Amino acid sequence: MQLANIDSYVRMRRERAEAALRDALPADWRIPSRLREAARYSLEAGGKRLRPVLVMAAAESVAGSEEAVEKALPFAVAVEMVHTYSLIHDDLPAMDNDDLRRGRPTNHKVYGEAMAILAGDGLLTHAFYVAAQAAGRGVPAARALAVVSELARYAGFPGMVGGQADDMLGEQGITSLEELENIHLHKTSDLIAFSLRAGGHAAEADDRALDALGLYGRNVGLAFQIQDDILDVTGDEAKLGKPQGSDERQGKVTYPYLIGLDESRRRVEALTEEAIGAIASAGLARADLLEGLARYVMRRDH
Amino acid sequence: MQLANIDSYVRMRRERAEAALRDALPADWRIPSRLREAARYSLEAGGKRLRPVLVMAAAESVAGSEEAVEKALPFAVAVEMVHTYSLIHDDLPAMDNDDLRRGRPTNHKVYGEAMAILAGDGLLTHAFYVAAQAAGRGVPAARALAVVSELARYAGFPGMVGGQADDMLGEQGITSLEELENIHLHKTSDLIAFSLRAGGHAAEADDRALDALGLYGRNVGLAFQIQDDILDVTGDEAKLGKPQGSDERQGKVTYPYLIGLDESRRRVEALTEEAIGAIASAGLARADLLEGLARYVMRRDH
Repeated sequence: MQLANIDSYVRMRRERAEAALRDALPADWRIPSRLREAARYSLEAGGKRLRPVLVMAAAESVAGSEEAVEKALPFAVAVEMVHTYSLIHDDLPAMDNDDLRRGRPTNHKVYGEAMAILAGDGLLTHAFYVAAQAAGRGVPAARALAVVSELARYAGFPGMVGGQADDMLGEQGITSLEELENIHLHKTSDLIAFSLRAGGHAAEADDRALDALGLYGRNVGLAFQIQDDILDVTGDEAKLGKPQGSDERQGKVTYPYLIGLDESRRRVEALTEEAIGAIASAGLARADLLEGLARYVMRRDH
Repeated sequence: MQLANIDSYVRMRRERAEAALRDALPADWRIPSRLREAARYSLEAGGKRLRPVLVMAAAESVAGSEEAVEKALPFAVAVEMVHTYSLIHDDLPAMDNDDLRRGRPTNHKVYGEAMAILAGDGLLTHAFYVAAQAAGRGVPAARALAVVSELARYAGFPGMVGGQADDMLGEQGITSLEELENIHLHKTSDLIAFSLRAGGHAAEADDRALDALGLYGRNVGLAFQIQDDILDVTGDEAKLGKPQGSDERQGKVTYPYLIGLDESRRRVEALTEEAIGAIASAGLARADLLEGLARYVMRRDH
């Protein structure tokens, strides 16, 4: 898919995700209003919605139909909830201690630490509720259960939570590219690999396609994270929603810091091509969609 | 079941739960060692294991077989993981700020706040992984998925997380029994009601039995919490693992504070009888087990 088309494709899918996210907390559930507000503050704060878009695109790439996209929607919402909870908890004073996120005060700055912890806990928990509801939308129970299991694994101890712990434990001490890549793989790539596989499950993909989607996600996720590091050095502050060069000021070890900007850019390109290669012979109905998305992620400026 | 027998029954089931909890984090998963240690520190800290025991007893009460107990084991482990995460997060400085739990330093006192937050996040996430594995032990996928969905609901925004938020938001301001009961229902009863229903699902209980089990759990959970309030006033410090009268010193609003000790005791008895009544005509194979357990919970001294 061409870049001009992929832009409008991403916009269309993002809008679908935004609408689903607004409805994700049942209106008739009795939830303390301050807690509901805190959860929605972060869940509806915009952002790229990359993970939900990838869930939907993966389903479409396998089945080639809009019906598969709708079946995958609960997984798209679930992964964005998990991503949002991780941002809320990562921003806490005991963790990265950030005051701003996407140009707005972080959750705990607005609602206090206790509500921020609970809003994160609630979003993480609710993600599994939402994922399980896919069975009511035509996804076989065994597939929905597989997605629950994979979400828990990719987001849990051996995945995102472990990556964040490595990051906290490593902080000043990271000296090798291998260590940095390991952190990025778990902090970022795991949830993106999950997104692709979840979309595949919604479209009842076979194991070969699921593995290809997972590998694509791993590489796109890593490219995404390196691109993030690059944009922190070269990007436009207004587009990024945060001051340029903040990684360097915070003493963060990044790809540009370890291997320079040019080599970082080459890596993004190589990973993007590897991602595209991974899905080339997986028998997908619409591999072009994911090819376009991989290039879209690589070329983004915020 | 008689009280002497129920004591050894509880001990037997608790030991089964302890063994399963020790194996709950796959040894071959790559998890940062400090994070794994933090999670195990709290998960293997003993405690009554009431929720896992209730999961197993519920399965046995429905099916009358040991096979059903084994099928229910993943749900027993999952609920204890959720309970453990909630204790770790509740003890954090931004929440209840407790230094001791069951006579030992709280998780964040040993591992620091960041690791404690992540250990809690990881345990909550992993609970869903473990619950989903029940499908590999002979529980139908649709039942395992129902348990995932119920765990997320009872532990989430409209359940335990909401109850904790109400507790934090209310703190000094609780004046009525209704408010206090509402907090206890969500902070404590919801996860106990879930435990009973999860055991029921493992034994493929019908809706009538599931509802009866849930109502039993609601009432036992509330009785359990009132008993906790009573023991804080009258209990033996060595058995409780915490100083007597700590609720009063912390200015906590409790049942004895609001309605006195005698009336609190009458409520525990009434709720216990209501619990037993709820399951009397639900067609269970072993209602006597749950009857014995309800009385066991009421008579406990720690």
